[in-house]
Amino acid sequence: MPNSPSNDVDAPPVTEQPCRFPDDSVGLVTPQIHHFTNPLLLTCGQTLSEFTLIYETYGRLNADASNAILICHALSGHHHAAGFHDQNDKKPGWWDQYIGPGKPIDTNRFFVVSLNNLGGCHGSTGPTSINPDTGEPWGSGFPLLRVRDWVNSQARLADTLGIQCWAAVIGGSLGGMQAMRWSLEYPDRVRHCIVIASSMKLTAQNIAFNEAARSAITSDPEFFGGDYLKHHTYPKGGLSVARMIGHITYLSGDGMGNKFGRELKSGSFKQGDNEPVEFQIESYLRYQGANFSKSFDANTYILMTKALDYFDLSREYNDNPVTAFEQSTCNFLVISFSSDWRFSPERSREIVNALIAAKRPVSYAEIDSQYGHDAFLLPNERYQTVFSQYLNNIDIGTASKPKTGG
Amino acid sequence: MPNSPSNDVDAPPVTEQPCRFPDDSVGLVTPQIHHFTNPLLLTCGQTLSEFTLIYETYGRLNADASNAILICHALSGHHHAAGFHDQNDKKPGWWDQYIGPGKPIDTNRFFVVSLNNLGGCHGSTGPTSINPDTGEPWGSGFPLLRVRDWVNSQARLADTLGIQCWAAVIGGSLGGMQAMRWSLEYPDRVRHCIVIASSMKLTAQNIAFNEAARSAITSDPEFFGGDYLKHHTYPKGGLSVARMIGHITYLSGDGMGNKFGRELKSGSFKQGDNEPVEFQIESYLRYQGANFSKSFDANTYILMTKALDYFDLSREYNDNPVTAFEQSTCNFLVISFSSDWRFSPERSREIVNALIAAKRPVSYAEIDSQYGHDAFLLPNERYQTVFSQYLNNIDIGTASKPKTGG
Repeated sequence: MPNSPSNDVDAPPVTEQPCRFPDDSVGLVTPQIHHFTNPLLLTCGQTLSEFTLIYETYGRLNADASNAILICHALSGHHHAAGFHDQNDKKPGWWDQYIGPGKPIDTNRFFVVSLNNLGGCHGSTGPTSINPDTGEPWGSGFPLLRVRDWVNSQARLADTLGIQCWAAVIGGSLGGMQAMRWSLEYPDRVRHCIVIASSMKLTAQNIAFNEAARSAITSDPEFFGGDYLKHHTYPKGGLSVARMIGHITYLSGDGMGNKFGRELKSGSFKQGDNEPVEFQIESYLRYQGANFSKSFDANTYILMTKALDYFDLSREYNDNPVTAFEQSTCNFLVISFSSDWRFSPERSREIVNALIAAKRPVSYAEIDSQYGHDAFLLPNERYQTVFSQYLNNIDIGTASKPKTGG
Repeated sequence: MPNSPSNDVDAPPVTEQPCRFPDDSVGLVTPQIHHFTNPLLLTCGQTLSEFTLIYETYGRLNADASNAILICHALSGHHHAAGFHDQNDKKPGWWDQYIGPGKPIDTNRFFVVSLNNLGGCHGSTGPTSINPDTGEPWGSGFPLLRVRDWVNSQARLADTLGIQCWAAVIGGSLGGMQAMRWSLEYPDRVRHCIVIASSMKLTAQNIAFNEAARSAITSDPEFFGGDYLKHHTYPKGGLSVARMIGHITYLSGDGMGNKFGRELKSGSFKQGDNEPVEFQIESYLRYQGANFSKSFDANTYILMTKALDYFDLSREYNDNPVTAFEQSTCNFLVISFSSDWRFSPERSREIVNALIAAKRPVSYAEIDSQYGHDAFLLPNERYQTVFSQYLNNIDIGTASKPKTGG
């Protein structure tokens, strides 16, 4: 197309411009909301009399609903996994790298469902929602959730969407814990379980980092025991530090060194200079922390990290993961990343070993990456290949109509 | 000795009881203070017109002062490295395991000097001291210090003690940085430099952890930009979180797992229980954090971590550690610990490689330990053997009179 005439250069953008999204993007997406009015009994014994889940879908559900994939998000994730909410969005959803036409989770073949979990802060019922019994925000009163509560609420969402059995349930990190729990709680509703950079239970070190992060939040005087909304305050300092801790531990030491080294933000070291010197890594972390603290709820952060800590796949199976996985009937793909030290390859090998002992079909790939735990969100050729090939081999009864070739 | 008669069982302890300290303890020690009235020009360009150092000594200086050893402390250390301040002390000094008659730093042979560094909070001039120019505590106005400022002030202390040349300068972690800097700044005043679990400069990840810790302190509303004393407050929440972060990273993941696992503080996991579950590691960390925040100054913590971050052995030597070490004339012993991931063996091997390239005599031992960075403070047979043998081989011109056999 020719350029616009010069007198149009400063004109506002035309509303009906042709879509500028890449060919392998799911494009514009609109979140949907479902309000559930049947009570949900939670693991803690409390009941949510009603609740809302916000979710997005990509691709098209086929006639026998055999091509549906559930995406389970991690600690700070949400429903917006792929595509754009607006023509002017600068960034797509958090897993856009892996969801779209021709991508590993190929929306030409699959119908993908991605939700914000219960207890979240992006539109699903959570601590910032109004407690119908009090007319006030839940705040500190929001019930403790466990991974199985998410799985149960996701099953409800599947019901409303007419999905009896997922072609695959997929998740990284805390999302992988949900995928594994699905395979045990609803064995007849999952055909494939894809567990990425996850663990059957956290290590003491992992719990310790989570506890330091929570302490940063709860010791912030603006936290008010979780009832900051009532006090019109917000523990942004504490949440920012919590995110900084998380951020450091989701990266690898080498990756961080390669990206930042000991570079200074500006200027140089001089003797005779009493100005505080600032390394790039410091301003980067502070920026990340401050940014996150503007968009995330502190109670949700605590709730999600607690769910992570509590998760123990085989607690109800005599602490025997083999007995646990014997409940499952699906196929498994397990993926880990070499430099991930919070969910190390050792943790994934434990999953694989338990699956083998339980005589379950399992594929395992340990991917070389310098990006630590974050690697599961980032481009990586081998990861993409393994992921694609596994999903391409999933049989879907009635093919959905592809919009474009894949 | 027979047991006490039964009517004495509940009697208070006799005051003049015979010394109950172990034979290999330096026993009761009394800190000493030296007030320096000659101004000290700092690396930042500011001058301290006067300053105080608190220190302890163990053993006896020999006639030609050839048996003196300087102990440089790490981040949260102080002058009280060995022995007891009081008959009723439950715990000896922080490095008592390694300093005493017959121990690696054998006080039968050596005269050991251990001080609290400038900027500290245990008796040497620091942010809680009174600024003579204002009559108020220094607080945020205390000058930024670098490792070389400590080395310069330690040299002044050596002068007052009549020590022209140290038999050895020894330090772990931040203390190892001081030992290395001594070897470059005062080559004719150090015969042996012992660098334990240290580094020529911090990695980006290490700086990042320090920055998260500092952010926890500075974002505490009770910090008041460092002037909490004026406001009669104290950022104890922030300092506590800072210490928690440090604590986690000074231990190894495996060591933490072996010590705490996923054990609960009390009770057990139950479904239908909305009480927050607490892991032992959580209460341990909170206890450690809270305890530390009662006894340590927040500005000192910031100052010490900044000195750690800034340290770069070869910055003034064209970023070439070989050129740097060519300034030194002493012998080196370098020690690292297998599971130390904040000052990993790789960092120590970099020191050793630079020393070899600079044609300096160096011995190196990589010690197997599961205790992470903290290993340098803990008992370990091979570490003790290597350390003892190296120090036993140090020639001391005129033998000091041993009090007991060693």
